[in-house]
Amino acid sequence: MTWSPAHPETVFTYGAPQLKFGPGAADEIGHDLAAMGASRVLVVTDAGVAATGWPDRVAVGIRASGLEAVVQASAHVEPTDASLLAAIGQARDAGPFDAFVAVGGGSSIDTAKAVDLVLTDDGQLLDYVNAPIGAGRAPSRPLAPLVAVPTTTGTGAESTTICVLDVLDLKVKTGISHVRLRPVLAVVDPRLTQSQPAGVTASAGMDILCHALESWTARPYTSYERKQPGERVPYCGSNPISDLWAERSMSLLAKAFRTAVRDGSDEGARGEMALAATFAGLGFGNAGVHVPHANAYPIAGRVRDFRPDGYSPDEAMVPHGMAVALTAPEAFRWTFEADPDRHLAAARLLDPGRGDRWASAPRDVLPGVLVDLMRDIGMPNGLQAVGYGEGDVDDLVEGALAQQRLLATSPREVGADDLAAIMSRSMQLWE
Amino acid sequence: MTWSPAHPETVFTYGAPQLKFGPGAADEIGHDLAAMGASRVLVVTDAGVAATGWPDRVAVGIRASGLEAVVQASAHVEPTDASLLAAIGQARDAGPFDAFVAVGGGSSIDTAKAVDLVLTDDGQLLDYVNAPIGAGRAPSRPLAPLVAVPTTTGTGAESTTICVLDVLDLKVKTGISHVRLRPVLAVVDPRLTQSQPAGVTASAGMDILCHALESWTARPYTSYERKQPGERVPYCGSNPISDLWAERSMSLLAKAFRTAVRDGSDEGARGEMALAATFAGLGFGNAGVHVPHANAYPIAGRVRDFRPDGYSPDEAMVPHGMAVALTAPEAFRWTFEADPDRHLAAARLLDPGRGDRWASAPRDVLPGVLVDLMRDIGMPNGLQAVGYGEGDVDDLVEGALAQQRLLATSPREVGADDLAAIMSRSMQLWE
Repeated sequence: MTWSPAHPETVFTYGAPQLKFGPGAADEIGHDLAAMGASRVLVVTDAGVAATGWPDRVAVGIRASGLEAVVQASAHVEPTDASLLAAIGQARDAGPFDAFVAVGGGSSIDTAKAVDLVLTDDGQLLDYVNAPIGAGRAPSRPLAPLVAVPTTTGTGAESTTICVLDVLDLKVKTGISHVRLRPVLAVVDPRLTQSQPAGVTASAGMDILCHALESWTARPYTSYERKQPGERVPYCGSNPISDLWAERSMSLLAKAFRTAVRDGSDEGARGEMALAATFAGLGFGNAGVHVPHANAYPIAGRVRDFRPDGYSPDEAMVPHGMAVALTAPEAFRWTFEADPDRHLAAARLLDPGRGDRWASAPRDVLPGVLVDLMRDIGMPNGLQAVGYGEGDVDDLVEGALAQQRLLATSPREVGADDLAAIMSRSMQLWE
Repeated sequence: MTWSPAHPETVFTYGAPQLKFGPGAADEIGHDLAAMGASRVLVVTDAGVAATGWPDRVAVGIRASGLEAVVQASAHVEPTDASLLAAIGQARDAGPFDAFVAVGGGSSIDTAKAVDLVLTDDGQLLDYVNAPIGAGRAPSRPLAPLVAVPTTTGTGAESTTICVLDVLDLKVKTGISHVRLRPVLAVVDPRLTQSQPAGVTASAGMDILCHALESWTARPYTSYERKQPGERVPYCGSNPISDLWAERSMSLLAKAFRTAVRDGSDEGARGEMALAATFAGLGFGNAGVHVPHANAYPIAGRVRDFRPDGYSPDEAMVPHGMAVALTAPEAFRWTFEADPDRHLAAARLLDPGRGDRWASAPRDVLPGVLVDLMRDIGMPNGLQAVGYGEGDVDDLVEGALAQQRLLATSPREVGADDLAAIMSRSMQLWE
């Protein structure tokens, strides 16, 4: 172990939304909101999800329970301060609301968190943003209930206490982080992901996998110095509860991931992917993620003209899960020495049938499992394949180093040279 | 499978308190309450737990965070309508309070649930009691935050939505059941169980084990007819999440149970038992328990003069966990045919090292594991050993049949004859 705290931490925390899971769950939200005492509800979504008809269907269900419901497609994919302010203004104009429902991916859920926060606590958005960008203000009261209805099996935003946003003027990605931002209820209805193209399932699935694998390998909570209660953070490092979720998520992925990509209409595989996403979210929402997620910020943020299958051809992008995946094999080769047993156990959970794996050098086993999977599901062959070269490494490293909130749970102390080596080795992942 | 619903249930629900776990956690409650916006807090405990000094220590910690705290040892072991009314009256006299903390076993936690309910929702206790005894009234608003600090590793009351009580005039055990009764935060600090005598650890451990095993073998949620949202109950049958908690709880018990009974000062084993108790509570608090728990009500309730080691010599009692355990081997022999694989898997989780087990007839494997464990930890040898004989079987069956709320999650449809056979075969468990 690389850590030897003088007074090791003895306490860990675990928080999660209540959960309703299964086909049909999205039709019951009106009942759930009524039981919370809500009467006038804002449904937040984005234009793409609105086009599927699900947000309207959810609103119809809410009205059937005798509540008012307004739908606003006010979320921007990858929220910015400007997009959040616009969504807040739009909500304020149509308000007041005493409950919120987010139907969509991480962007819709995070937008709803910000709308709920600013409208309920009556402050200025930037005040709540993490210092040093904002003032890191904590909400002074409980927020109105927020129900999250994820339509992408991956983000975990339904389980987390953060809202991620780009501050446009400063060109930085930052967040708002407070335990009150966590949705009170997550409604996971696998029917809502059935229209997902194979490319989206592949990228979103790599996000699930890295949530599980990063929280499973995260720096253990006992390796930190003992915190005062006021110093506790939602991401407390790996612990017996986050381990449980991560392990089960990896087992579900081993069973369902390739099938779900190959055949999007396989209901069993879809259901298992939705469950894997939920479990991984419950785990990393408490333990944290680390190097691959930190690297993903600049990899997605500095995209030039890569246009992935399954996404809009009008926009250059590296989807979040793909951006996370591209440096994962090399990141886990580098973290291996922090806890070899855990890395080997993860490989076994993710690829239980592959006996020949264990002939590799131990450090290469988990990267090998990841690379095989990425080839099978059509991920690009490394950073070069999405448009980066050696000349971009310094920029990418600078962007990753800015994610200190994530790097704080890396199982090894991580510096610029480590990240540069991981980026360089990730240019091409297989021959 | 014995069930073939016309329209199988597709949805399950999962709810849990937030959790803070580890040595030291009980000293941080003031901070947690302040973050919830509380200012004046009632600490509910019972006289026995009060004598350990922990409730006062918790109150001192709360005051150090600038809040007011009042301690009342108002909980009666095995709460009755009379004891709850007395606790409510005592709390009202010292109130108002805007948060509650329960320090103790299931009795203290359930008493605090009732006090919070009646004081916050401003109704009459009996109105809230389950029909037909009471009116089954639902609280009309969210309750004040309740923090549960269990001092007995077993009850799971920190995770459940029920308050169990005896109605004295009617001589029945019933409950109040509503999702709003669930504590918002469970603080599990293994230091608070360190004074537990071996006999208490053994009984409480059997309660944990049966929580895990009964929720793991409970009727699957998919075997019910599809419910309308208003028909959903907190105990929805076994499901992928309750399974996860039950499995891990059984693995922890396999590792730590015998050690914790043998050496109460083994901190590692105590910590693992506390974690096992928490996990089992999170599982059964959603899936439910069944036959052994239903049987435990009359076995404990009709006690004549059994006085177990480790408990007060002044009072005849069959401790709850012991009462649950006494019919467990025979109950699981009877439930075996509902899902043989699951029963064998449980035996493997509970006794992974015992290869010779698997030579038994499959139906006898899990009962054998349980009987061996019960002998090792000093459980009585069957119902005879706590004072019952064949002539008591009809009475015991009548008492168990009254627990329809629990029997509803039995993996096989259960009638009087089934219970009578289980009781009779449980008179003596080993030669």
